[in-house]
Amino acid sequence: MSDDECVFCAIVRGDAESSVVHDDADVLAFMDLQPVTPGHLLVVPKKHAVGLEDLDVEDGQKLWAVGHRLAKALRRSGLQCEGINLFLADGKAAAQEVFHVHLHVFPRFAGDTFRISADWRVRERSELDETAAAIRKTHADLTNAAHQTS
Amino acid sequence: MSDDECVFCAIVRGDAESSVVHDDADVLAFMDLQPVTPGHLLVVPKKHAVGLEDLDVEDGQKLWAVGHRLAKALRRSGLQCEGINLFLADGKAAAQEVFHVHLHVFPRFAGDTFRISADWRVRERSELDETAAAIRKTHADLTNAAHQTS
Ligand SMILES: [Zn+2]
Ligand SMILES: [Zn+2]
Repeated sequence: MSDDECVFCAIVRGDAESSVVHDDADVLAFMDLQPVTPGHLLVVPKKHAVGLEDLDVEDGQKLWAVGHRLAKALRRSGLQCEGINLFLADGKAAAQEVFHVHLHVFPRFAGDTFRISADWRVRERSELDETAAAIRKTHADLTNAAHQTS
Repeated sequence: MSDDECVFCAIVRGDAESSVVHDDADVLAFMDLQPVTPGHLLVVPKKHAVGLEDLDVEDGQKLWAVGHRLAKALRRSGLQCEGINLFLADGKAAAQEVFHVHLHVFPRFAGDTFRISADWRVRERSELDETAAAIRKTHADLTNAAHQTS
């Protein structure tokens, strides 16, 4: 359940300091030490999972539900909050830094410093259709596998 | 249920073109027209909701579950995928562009062009504790309200 080397497991056990905003049987939420804006918080499953690959479907849905409600709480908190971003990084190539899956929830406002950038270009429909077909195939396999084991 | 002015509702109705990867009673997933990387897809509830404020808790959890499984599908699809980001923009200040709530799921790999930036600084525990207290208060109010109506 708990990983001795994992800082988020240490927070879940109460062995490391954190500023907790929500605590239930399955999910813990606490403030990010290096917030992109004041109010930036992290939602984690109590049961150690590295990322989306080993996270239970149900634990993921609990994580989401807490993040969703905390987003609403941020809008009502009195903190500067004109919008919300949810963000999850799964794997080093996706900028994951702590290898215990966590959902970022943070307030946004005009003039904040958070930015995303990418090489956004409109793609051809044929290219999109081809990509969709590749994903549809593996997604259908996963869906069928889930039905067979449940 | 459907908003006449909304491009994602038009896609859900089949009145606008899209490259679909998943379609069930409640959730549709299709390719982003301007992908940050090939494989970038959007997961939307079929029932129109502008953002997290008017999205049903259950519809949100269905959205998440499909996004979670599609993340796994991307890793198995043969597309370049060493990691995954999930991203949701709620409100104009958070960079939301289409006002029908949608979860971005996209593959990441070393050398891709997606970047995030912010003024990340470690904050004092006292500041984090104070912020946490403000959020805890409004979150507890929301949790109690949800229990009273369910
Ligand atoms: Zn852990
Ligand atoms: Zn819509």
